[in-house]
Amino acid sequence: MARLTEDLRMLPGIGTKSAQRLAFHTLRSSSEHAEALAEAVREVKARLRLCSICNNITDVDPCLYCAGPTRNQRIVCVVEEPTNIATMEKTHYNGVYHVLHGTLSPLHGVGPEHLRIENLQKRVESGDLDEVILATSPTVEGEATAHYLADVLRHSGMRITRIATGVPAGSDIEYADEVTMTRAMEGRRSV
Amino acid sequence: MARLTEDLRMLPGIGTKSAQRLAFHTLRSSSEHAEALAEAVREVKARLRLCSICNNITDVDPCLYCAGPTRNQRIVCVVEEPTNIATMEKTHYNGVYHVLHGTLSPLHGVGPEHLRIENLQKRVESGDLDEVILATSPTVEGEATAHYLADVLRHSGMRITRIATGVPAGSDIEYADEVTMTRAMEGRRSV
Repeated sequence: MARLTEDLRMLPGIGTKSAQRLAFHTLRSSSEHAEALAEAVREVKARLRLCSICNNITDVDPCLYCAGPTRNQRIVCVVEEPTNIATMEKTHYNGVYHVLHGTLSPLHGVGPEHLRIENLQKRVESGDLDEVILATSPTVEGEATAHYLADVLRHSGMRITRIATGVPAGSDIEYADEVTMTRAMEGRRSV
Repeated sequence: MARLTEDLRMLPGIGTKSAQRLAFHTLRSSSEHAEALAEAVREVKARLRLCSICNNITDVDPCLYCAGPTRNQRIVCVVEEPTNIATMEKTHYNGVYHVLHGTLSPLHGVGPEHLRIENLQKRVESGDLDEVILATSPTVEGEATAHYLADVLRHSGMRITRIATGVPAGSDIEYADEVTMTRAMEGRRSV
C-alpha cells in the first residue's frame, strides 16, 4: 500500500491524501479493474510515443495527422501541448501540427533547449511548407515562445502568422480588460 | 416613503426589496446627503444631454472628444453605449466616437430605427473621415449591428474595420471555446 500511495503521489495534482484515497479505492475494487488499470498504465508507456514529424502523442509513426491524406501538409499549426490539438480540431483547421511540449519560461529555467523545435526547423528549411501558424496561448510564456519562434524562423522567408488576440465570441466589451481591448483594436480588420 | 420606494424600484436592477432598503437608508442619512442626492439627480437631467455629433453623454455640446484638439477627428469608433467609451479610452485609441445607444435585436423588437445612426451616416457622407471602426461586442446582437452598419456604410467606399475576436490576453488556449478559437484562427496575422 505504501508503495502504491507513494507512486500515485508522484502524479501531478495528486497530494498525499488523494493518493491514499486512490490506493484504498484500488484495494476495494475488483481484481479485473485493478488489472485493467495496471495494464493500461503499462501499455501507455509501451505503445505510445511521439510522432517523429510533429511530436504529437501517437501509437503509429508518423501520426494520423502527419500521415493523413486529406490534411493540408503545407500548413503547420504550432501548439504548446498535445491537448491543444483537440481545441484546434474543433475549428475548421485542416492542416498539420507541431507540438512544442512546453513554453519558454526564463523565470522557471525553461529555455529554448527544453522545447522540441529541431524537427520544426527542419520542416521549415525543407521548403515543403506554405505557412507556420504560431498558436501558443496569448499568455506571457506563450507570447515569449511565439516571438522566439518568429525570430528563429524569420530568415526562411516563410509566411509566419499568429492567432488573433481579442474579445472572445459572445462576450460583452464591457468585460474586456485593457490589454485584450488594446489588442482587439490593433488587430482590427477591414470588413 | 411609498412614493420614494416606488420611484427607486423603477431603476434597472432594483427590485422591491432593494428599493425599500435604499429608501430606509435615505431616511436614516443626514439631510445634507439626501439633499445632495436629490440635487444630483435633478442636475443630471437638467445639465446632461447627448452630443449632437457623436451621441455621447455630455454637459457641453459638442462633447470633449468631438471638440478635442488633440483627438484624430478622422477616425470614428462606433460603440453600443456611452460606458464603452471608458473601455476604449484605456487603449491607445485617440480618435473620436459614435454611440449607437443600443444594438439590433429583432427578437426584442429593436430594429435599425431604434438606433442613433443618422448623424453617423452624415459624418461618413461628408467625406471628413478616413476610417470607421465597428467596436460593438462580438455577441449575437453586436455582430448583427456591425453587419448592418457595414452594409449601410459600404457604398461610401470608406475604410470600415471590425475589432478582433480572439483568445483574450493572458488566457490559455485550453479554455478557448470553439467559436472563439475558429475566429482566432481566421483572424491570424502575419508576424
